[in-house]
Amino acid sequence: MSKQLVFGHQNPDTDTIAAAISLAYLRQQDGVDVEAVALGEPNAETKFALDYFDTKPLRVITAAKPEVDQVMLVDHNEPQQSVSDLNQVQVTNVVDHHRIHDFNTEKPLYYRAEPVGCSSTILTKMYHEKNVAIPKNIAGLMLSAIISDTLLLKSPTTTDDDKAAVEELVKIAGVDYNDYGIKMLKAGTNIAARSDKDLIDGDAKSFTMNGVNVRIDQINTVDLDDVFARQADIEAAMKDEMHTEGYDLFVVMVTNVLNSDTELLVIGSHTDVVEKAFGKKLENNRMALPGVVSRKKQVVPPLTDAFNA
Amino acid sequence: MSKQLVFGHQNPDTDTIAAAISLAYLRQQDGVDVEAVALGEPNAETKFALDYFDTKPLRVITAAKPEVDQVMLVDHNEPQQSVSDLNQVQVTNVVDHHRIHDFNTEKPLYYRAEPVGCSSTILTKMYHEKNVAIPKNIAGLMLSAIISDTLLLKSPTTTDDDKAAVEELVKIAGVDYNDYGIKMLKAGTNIAARSDKDLIDGDAKSFTMNGVNVRIDQINTVDLDDVFARQADIEAAMKDEMHTEGYDLFVVMVTNVLNSDTELLVIGSHTDVVEKAFGKKLENNRMALPGVVSRKKQVVPPLTDAFNA
Repeated sequence: MSKQLVFGHQNPDTDTIAAAISLAYLRQQDGVDVEAVALGEPNAETKFALDYFDTKPLRVITAAKPEVDQVMLVDHNEPQQSVSDLNQVQVTNVVDHHRIHDFNTEKPLYYRAEPVGCSSTILTKMYHEKNVAIPKNIAGLMLSAIISDTLLLKSPTTTDDDKAAVEELVKIAGVDYNDYGIKMLKAGTNIAARSDKDLIDGDAKSFTMNGVNVRIDQINTVDLDDVFARQADIEAAMKDEMHTEGYDLFVVMVTNVLNSDTELLVIGSHTDVVEKAFGKKLENNRMALPGVVSRKKQVVPPLTDAFNA
Repeated sequence: MSKQLVFGHQNPDTDTIAAAISLAYLRQQDGVDVEAVALGEPNAETKFALDYFDTKPLRVITAAKPEVDQVMLVDHNEPQQSVSDLNQVQVTNVVDHHRIHDFNTEKPLYYRAEPVGCSSTILTKMYHEKNVAIPKNIAGLMLSAIISDTLLLKSPTTTDDDKAAVEELVKIAGVDYNDYGIKMLKAGTNIAARSDKDLIDGDAKSFTMNGVNVRIDQINTVDLDDVFARQADIEAAMKDEMHTEGYDLFVVMVTNVLNSDTELLVIGSHTDVVEKAFGKKLENNRMALPGVVSRKKQVVPPLTDAFNA
């Protein structure tokens, strides 16, 4: 069998990196020649986790076809979140926990999605099913991914499966869950060290909602003021990027990871749809959403519904 | 939780019925209120299996939304092969072994696809993973499904997983695999008892290939002459249906289940693409394809490639 590549979405987060490493190792046990790569440099949180568990950052690719004919996707399936030339290669495996959208294949494949908080939770099950022991460093990265995606199991996306996976991975990784988790989340929230462009790009994903190009970014912080003190500059960067990338609506979720609240910063057309989606008015382009932490579960669905209404 | 329905594709075959019954039972063990239903009456082969394993035929539905808001799909995912109002309901589970095509969701879901010979093979694994014992009659139906989809494990779609599932299901069902399998396959091939329309509809699926509406049916038989003796009448029925349903190209695979050969009967436009796909000329609208038994693996991919070339 020819070599394959496995990677997560653009703007890689901790789950995307951990799941790629994890699936690569699992498939290698079956003799598959597969290398975990990334579609971008690791963010500060992921760097912390990679350092902590003594793992090298993944090689960054911008296209797949020059190297391989077959790929595996983790933590995403929507082509616009994937490698630029996805339509030139065959997808043989997907492990994901998001909706399925614009994903079409010509041949049958292994597709494993579950409505859980994190791709790494699904991978934990897959190791069990294949009776493969999870190496310590990979367990640590998968644990980091679940902590990151569920914000220490506090996000409404959290399921019993995520909790069970954390319980198991903690033992293999040999860390104190809460202590390690807060250190890792804080490492990912060093707002002062990040440029305006990095803040609005760092964890951004593109969606098409009823024909409208919507960009939704999420900035994790331990203090909302660290971000909003720079509101004017951040808005300028958002406008700039909307112009160059053709986004119609740009939504930035600024999320306090310690108390699980979010304030939106919204720019562009269709801001009335955002107001309709959450039943609140924007003031100074901002809207407080207490208890909201999940883009996937608490922002994308109401916004999609409002666009389709 | 509200009640859900689980069903396979239109023109139900044995796997579609067995997998619906099997997934319903598995989810019921988790307290989910779900009823297995069908999008059509069982064919002769499936009736034989249901009778043999003392199971009632499933209730037939034509629309989902009047009854439920949520559904589960087995053995298919393409909307044009599914219930007419699929876009009105939420899909919460898919268990399938086909390509993914035109399948979009708004929310995360449980999606389990593997490139194996039969959906019931995947379900056998899922029972293991959940530590649920497979009831004897359901094991018998799942075994029947694998025998049907892989033609007694002889189709090139057959994988080691299918073989392992058969080995296990035979023990639970308590039948002689080969003896039961040949009886069941023969029960499904009583050509004389079937109308021309039933022959061309019985196991037909619709595909869109590069914008062309392609209908591909498969007729299992123990003697190709039983079918081709009626060629003129069958062609007339095909033409009739192309006209009423808007198919551009109608391909009927006539498959000898005992020696694993197929002869195509082809009507409509783009017959040159069929010739290109298989590198052979049609004579009298027919083309012999020795060793071909799998629509999914041996007919759809070359035809899709030829349409896209």
